[in-house]
Amino acid sequence: MESTNPTAAILVIGDEILTGRTREGNAWHLAGVLANAGFDLKEMRVVSDDHDRIVEAIRALDKSLGGAYDHLFTSGGIGPTHDDVTADAVADAFGVGIGINEQARAAMQARYDKLGLELTGNRLRMARIPDGAELIENAASAAPGFTLGGTHVMAGVPEVFSAMVDALIPRLVGGRPLVSREVEIMRGESDVAEDLAEIARQNPKLSLGSYPFTREGRYGTKLVVRGLDEPAVETAFAQLCQRIGVTP
Amino acid sequence: MESTNPTAAILVIGDEILTGRTREGNAWHLAGVLANAGFDLKEMRVVSDDHDRIVEAIRALDKSLGGAYDHLFTSGGIGPTHDDVTADAVADAFGVGIGINEQARAAMQARYDKLGLELTGNRLRMARIPDGAELIENAASAAPGFTLGGTHVMAGVPEVFSAMVDALIPRLVGGRPLVSREVEIMRGESDVAEDLAEIARQNPKLSLGSYPFTREGRYGTKLVVRGLDEPAVETAFAQLCQRIGVTP
Repeated sequence: MESTNPTAAILVIGDEILTGRTREGNAWHLAGVLANAGFDLKEMRVVSDDHDRIVEAIRALDKSLGGAYDHLFTSGGIGPTHDDVTADAVADAFGVGIGINEQARAAMQARYDKLGLELTGNRLRMARIPDGAELIENAASAAPGFTLGGTHVMAGVPEVFSAMVDALIPRLVGGRPLVSREVEIMRGESDVAEDLAEIARQNPKLSLGSYPFTREGRYGTKLVVRGLDEPAVETAFAQLCQRIGVTP
Repeated sequence: MESTNPTAAILVIGDEILTGRTREGNAWHLAGVLANAGFDLKEMRVVSDDHDRIVEAIRALDKSLGGAYDHLFTSGGIGPTHDDVTADAVADAFGVGIGINEQARAAMQARYDKLGLELTGNRLRMARIPDGAELIENAASAAPGFTLGGTHVMAGVPEVFSAMVDALIPRLVGGRPLVSREVEIMRGESDVAEDLAEIARQNPKLSLGSYPFTREGRYGTKLVVRGLDEPAVETAFAQLCQRIGVTP
């Protein structure tokens, strides 16, 4: 698919995903948000809570560090415990220092005062922010995320991740939203492969996909037409439906 | 965590994941299988149905091609339609040819005969296998996956992926299964950060993780101890529970 939208990658940091104990959901959520906000998500990665792996991935994925994409969104590893190593890894990837950020400390202090809790050493660890970073507000639990270069660092807890995404996305300049039309047919994908390929050939700016499934023991296929040009998507989708003889 | 187990990565191929329309489940399933079978899963990636991106990822991840890990498991892009480009990309990554594999054709022919279907051009496309690859049986729908070097290529349809995983894993030499013990407490993770860090310091061969959650408006934390040495995991877990005052 042809796209002039800004490109993006998602980096999920966390052993709990790699050991199969937790099913990843933050990247899935953000992928949908990015499609609607006009970002072209090209890649997702999951790495463990390991300083060197995180540094390596950030450098490979953030264009401002010579990597591949305009924006890199990370999830996980910015909490108060010993296995939360993301903020230090980001500082190292960018070659900057890290320390308590006064704006972050103030946001956390306000919340902890309200809750009647003390802002102790471990909690304060969440106010450690790489030098020069801009904070991402956390409406869910105060401890902020941050942006440095093209890298946007957010928490792994789903409610907090989602709150940070809500705060961050409106301040980024996206492109045209991805438009998608789909239909399900109860036929195997081999049956429609030629028609699909023909429509794809006629529409090089669109992306046509087919996704087989089984339902009650029968084979079906979901056909999807995607692109940034809505009228072109609608026209190609109508052509496809006509060729394979289904009502959209 | 210290591990002498073979290392592994998972590469998921598919636009439908990157556009946020489908929540990834195959990598999640395989991650659990790999932990139990004694493989140390280090990384997951998701890339689009794009020949060059797939080639690049395979070369970066498969040690037999100079990449990072002993095993690379892929999901997606080996169906009969124009957007299924994985088999060709794998052949190119390894610099080998690709063509109809007679063993694959025979397996598919037997199944299609049984179903009374013709093995047409599009369906036959699924018997195209890189030269020198070993087939992975597909008990769900016949069209096989394949292994080339350290790369194991499987389908994206969950039932088929799962059938291929079942056929493949027993023939690979794994290591020691990952042992994991966990407990949930209704306290924030800051409260237990020091105890957790202390147990982690005392047990450098184990991995200790804490995962905050909210339930009915209250904060909780899941504490996890992981490792390959079961008695060491049990001992460290008991120490942790004692320190934070919970019953395992």
